[in-house]
Amino acid sequence: MSEFDVLCIGNAIVDIIARCDEAFLTENGIVRGAMNLIDAERSALLYDRMGPAVETSGGSAGNTAAAVAGLGGRAAFFGKVSNDHLGGVYAHDIRAQGVAFDTRPLEGPPPTARSMIFVTPDGERSMNTYLGACVELGPNDVEEDKARGAKVTYFEGYLWDPPRAKEAIRMTADIAHAAGREVSMSLSDPFCVDRYRGEFLDLMRSGTVDIVFANEHELISLYQTSSFDTALAAIRNDCTLAVVTRSERGSIAATREQTVSIDPVTVENVVDTTGAGDLYAGGFLFGYTNGRSLADCGRLGSLAASLVIGQIGPRLQTSPRDAAIQAGLL
Amino acid sequence: MSEFDVLCIGNAIVDIIARCDEAFLTENGIVRGAMNLIDAERSALLYDRMGPAVETSGGSAGNTAAAVAGLGGRAAFFGKVSNDHLGGVYAHDIRAQGVAFDTRPLEGPPPTARSMIFVTPDGERSMNTYLGACVELGPNDVEEDKARGAKVTYFEGYLWDPPRAKEAIRMTADIAHAAGREVSMSLSDPFCVDRYRGEFLDLMRSGTVDIVFANEHELISLYQTSSFDTALAAIRNDCTLAVVTRSERGSIAATREQTVSIDPVTVENVVDTTGAGDLYAGGFLFGYTNGRSLADCGRLGSLAASLVIGQIGPRLQTSPRDAAIQAGLL
Repeated sequence: MSEFDVLCIGNAIVDIIARCDEAFLTENGIVRGAMNLIDAERSALLYDRMGPAVETSGGSAGNTAAAVAGLGGRAAFFGKVSNDHLGGVYAHDIRAQGVAFDTRPLEGPPPTARSMIFVTPDGERSMNTYLGACVELGPNDVEEDKARGAKVTYFEGYLWDPPRAKEAIRMTADIAHAAGREVSMSLSDPFCVDRYRGEFLDLMRSGTVDIVFANEHELISLYQTSSFDTALAAIRNDCTLAVVTRSERGSIAATREQTVSIDPVTVENVVDTTGAGDLYAGGFLFGYTNGRSLADCGRLGSLAASLVIGQIGPRLQTSPRDAAIQAGLL
Repeated sequence: MSEFDVLCIGNAIVDIIARCDEAFLTENGIVRGAMNLIDAERSALLYDRMGPAVETSGGSAGNTAAAVAGLGGRAAFFGKVSNDHLGGVYAHDIRAQGVAFDTRPLEGPPPTARSMIFVTPDGERSMNTYLGACVELGPNDVEEDKARGAKVTYFEGYLWDPPRAKEAIRMTADIAHAAGREVSMSLSDPFCVDRYRGEFLDLMRSGTVDIVFANEHELISLYQTSSFDTALAAIRNDCTLAVVTRSERGSIAATREQTVSIDPVTVENVVDTTGAGDLYAGGFLFGYTNGRSLADCGRLGSLAASLVIGQIGPRLQTSPRDAAIQAGLL
């Protein structure tokens, strides 16, 4: 029997979110729509220049875990915070959402990671992440019972940025596969794909990863092609299941044998796209681990994503379970 | 010449906001819709029971200062934080909004104040405030140049809860009046009025306070009557200008000579009422210190309040100035 539906592994980050105009991004050398890695000094500088902000727990895979739990699924999370104020906030929020989170916090510096997220008037978010305590995540943080007990282990490609998280991932994947479970990853960001293309392809081709989540920009970056169709044909041969999101064009779940197209859920007022991909993955994996069809998995993903882009921040302030029931998906 | 439009004085509080159902309030003995004062121990207990939260700077008069600045006014703030993480967040947010904030932070404990705010499905907020460093605000924190240089000094009735803030208020009011300025207060909360009724009436009748902001519940509590009209007749004799908000019934600005009724700005989806009264006061005082008619002051107040109840938290995530321009008020 499985103890968890989904085990998520990722950088444990508190988001600091403020609005800005387009000029601010240019003036401060921030790559638009991307995750920009920054050091402590630049973190202080950008915070100085940042407008009034809202703080909320975030982190890609952490957001996914929260979404799974919010839909009624059983979720667990591995991620490293420090024993400081933000670490306490992070642990509170994810546990309060019902996610099992027991990674031992780091004693002393570096501090808990934070990402300064600037949201432009179109709702696009540009992230500036200081990894802090996340650099300490390593094999010692793998809880074997959770790795064995989760139907799907899901991790973010961003984990290739800190030095030793990849060891924890490989170890967790081995334990999961030995227990007959599946392993899934998100490609995270086109620039992240660019940094680790070879390793990501190797994870897929070696069978370390079974299910891949990507948006179309990440997919195209992975195969260094300008053709979406070429890239889609390639990825369906490189993994068991590829799930590709295409913003207002919906999403696609593709195996070697079949392609399922899923309509997007339209959102009238795009407030902040932070967490859209993470919430899609959460909705999809909730459906997947509860025996739903690929089409329903995609619908659950689209619904969760639509809820999060209508609000500030990547953790839902309303119940996705209620929304799914109302939409006839539960 | 005036250096500032409005100087606000209040408890410097970071809000921790989460949704809850009605039962949660009853089970935890929280007075619905009110500001419940709590100690450090209860603060830890409630946080433990609280769902996933969003953190944002708050505090009644601080919210008002932020609204004045957001509308393009010149605002200053006195309030006490501690030299800790939340104190840094508070100072960043209010300064980033353009508010002059120079109160020296407390070195060491108690920590920066926080209010755990539970929002029920109807959007009503029930606050649980641990005053922390706010108890240290006192006469030493009065900056004479700001007290002299602001057209209106505005303070929250909540400042009667900490022990020595009232001394700072009386001192500031004396300086302001000597410079020919006006002094204004908010009655804050019906229970707060109940705690300090005699002192609040004395502030008004002694001329320490010229302009009073209240909602109808606070007004009725102040005069211990069940009749709104009786209470309104009483307050217009006790101060120069009374501004009374009545939720969906709009608001009233009343002097001894005239009564101006202002329509509310209707809000389709009430998300969270946190800060509604504070933002109303901010909009009103921005208009008042910029020579607008009482009717326009009220319209600016209603507009600012309508914006804040459509979002989570009391600091606007959109520009009230843009909204006021769009509404033809600027």
